[in-house]
Amino acid sequence: MSNPYGPEYIRAIAPYQAGKPIAEVAREFGLDEANIVKLASNENPFGVPESSKQAMLQAAAELARYPDSNGFELKTALAKRYDVPMDCITLGNGSNDILEIAAKAFVQKGDAVLYAQYSFAVYALAAQGLGARAIVVPAVDHGHDLDAMAAAIDQDTKLVFIANPNNPTGTFLPAAKLEAFLDKVPANVIVVLDEAYNEFLAPQDQYESTAWVRKYPNLIVSRTFSKAYGLAGLRVGFAIAQPAVTDLMNRVRQPFNVNSLAQAAAVAALNDTAFLKKSAENNTAGYQQYVQAFEEMGLQYVPSYGNFVLVKVGEDEGAGARVNVALLKQGVIVRPVGAYGLPQWLRISIGLPQENAACIAALKKALA
Amino acid sequence: MSNPYGPEYIRAIAPYQAGKPIAEVAREFGLDEANIVKLASNENPFGVPESSKQAMLQAAAELARYPDSNGFELKTALAKRYDVPMDCITLGNGSNDILEIAAKAFVQKGDAVLYAQYSFAVYALAAQGLGARAIVVPAVDHGHDLDAMAAAIDQDTKLVFIANPNNPTGTFLPAAKLEAFLDKVPANVIVVLDEAYNEFLAPQDQYESTAWVRKYPNLIVSRTFSKAYGLAGLRVGFAIAQPAVTDLMNRVRQPFNVNSLAQAAAVAALNDTAFLKKSAENNTAGYQQYVQAFEEMGLQYVPSYGNFVLVKVGEDEGAGARVNVALLKQGVIVRPVGAYGLPQWLRISIGLPQENAACIAALKKALA
Repeated sequence: MSNPYGPEYIRAIAPYQAGKPIAEVAREFGLDEANIVKLASNENPFGVPESSKQAMLQAAAELARYPDSNGFELKTALAKRYDVPMDCITLGNGSNDILEIAAKAFVQKGDAVLYAQYSFAVYALAAQGLGARAIVVPAVDHGHDLDAMAAAIDQDTKLVFIANPNNPTGTFLPAAKLEAFLDKVPANVIVVLDEAYNEFLAPQDQYESTAWVRKYPNLIVSRTFSKAYGLAGLRVGFAIAQPAVTDLMNRVRQPFNVNSLAQAAAVAALNDTAFLKKSAENNTAGYQQYVQAFEEMGLQYVPSYGNFVLVKVGEDEGAGARVNVALLKQGVIVRPVGAYGLPQWLRISIGLPQENAACIAALKKALA
Repeated sequence: MSNPYGPEYIRAIAPYQAGKPIAEVAREFGLDEANIVKLASNENPFGVPESSKQAMLQAAAELARYPDSNGFELKTALAKRYDVPMDCITLGNGSNDILEIAAKAFVQKGDAVLYAQYSFAVYALAAQGLGARAIVVPAVDHGHDLDAMAAAIDQDTKLVFIANPNNPTGTFLPAAKLEAFLDKVPANVIVVLDEAYNEFLAPQDQYESTAWVRKYPNLIVSRTFSKAYGLAGLRVGFAIAQPAVTDLMNRVRQPFNVNSLAQAAAVAALNDTAFLKKSAENNTAGYQQYVQAFEEMGLQYVPSYGNFVLVKVGEDEGAGARVNVALLKQGVIVRPVGAYGLPQWLRISIGLPQENAACIAALKKALA
């Protein structure tokens, strides 16, 4: 059916494929929800921090009110934590919103947006939604090739997306390489450094990108509360950038984009260092659990710095989809990544030890 | 300071001015939050329905999971309520998101967006954010002039916004006039009928716009849970349109735009007819309270069909701002509408009887 409405670049968009919710898999495969293990969306297996639950209960009384459009309490907490002024902070309805806001603020039809092969699907969607040209730089070892990316920036390029660690591959760029790249990027090109998985980095890999913002007026650091902080269902992310850039982002931001409960829960989670520590430690242990299993099973995987791991489940183009269905039938939800051009691979989120064990057992059965 | 980033049309945007939150007024004016009456943002004075609170408590356990991107439960409930297939429904992060999604899906730079003078501020922002030309049709009696709007549609016009009832003026267009307008709009022009205040209409004014969608393939009906349903802080709205239009809207929608608690609370609120009835009855009584006071005080007001009323508080251009500050000092927050080109007027939301009484008393004092 031909559709007479909208720009051609909108009609060409293929919608984002979200991970299947537990309820949907239960409906489709006739399974009991209680027996389903979901390791598909890089969510926190510990659930919401207790501190966030308490904060939400207090905020719930005022839910018929609009959220604070300026996010005073949350921005105050973030400003303190990251040692930046409040006018350097943009709040988003998840960091997905931050990515879309940045694209809308700095890119128009005919401009180019640059990102790496096998990086987060929303970069392509954000570019397409504006009728921008995508420059996709081939990956090396499933990760960003920063030299090639710097060389690929052309006259039309207005924005570069970099994911570190990268989703869905888990690859990591050390601080020195990122800084060298930022030094090469022309001053009029915005760089969005998407650090959704930053909090899972081992101490020796951590770096202070939020401080780099002082040095690079074209840098936007994007973070989320959906992963290590366990608030995916509430939708809250944020960006740190210089005031001139932040000002433009806030002009295109929907005024009430971050709901009241998300704001309250995020303030609590930000101060809940015990929860963050527990999440990171569980993740390190769970990653080892998968690595050991994959090595025993002789499966190739991409060394991961996130809360997930990409594993190759066959040599043929149908392998990922086939093994995915075999896992779904056993009540294990992981993420097929054929849409990323990785049809032989699956992305598995790191869960609780028993969830990881169930996934590994199901994978062995599926591959037997 | 010159800003080297972003399209010129983005740099020209003046950000939306939200109503002042209670906490902010308390900080600024040194008042006790408990003594502040907020009648600034057309919120529901009864708070969140108990049914929604219970639904949220149940959903809270799963908040570390991403929301259901497809909104299965909520769309099922909406499809049943409005007797439309699920593929006619788009969910939004408030109806603000619906308005932005519609603009992004159907309008590009150089196109025109048409709306009435004194209609909702987000229409202008949505057009500006895309570099579109705004065609603003002068109001008649503070409301839409549909004949003039139909005549103003030009070759570039891709989208028309109509608010019914209109915010911030409260004016209303009866069904027959709307249908006559829809019959005149060219088939390739999308009409967004923004009915955020629909649930406050008296029985004799109600009409079935959601059924009109069958007849008009270019019609999008937009509704919200922020007003009569009392869920402003949670952010949930929806659109009903034919599948071809809905499909494009879902392509530009952020995949997790509606948080999990909002989805759960909205399902409960939709079925809570007692709460809706109580809200509408309180609104009718509160409106009479204001009308009586304004007539006693000799103040001009615009007859309103929403949960707010626009009142003229002076003849000079500074009247609205001046009286607004006088009210703030007494702990009463209403909405100045100078940014709408109505500097002599204030928009007052209808609250509980005692809140309305406090506002009326403060207004008398401010005008004495």
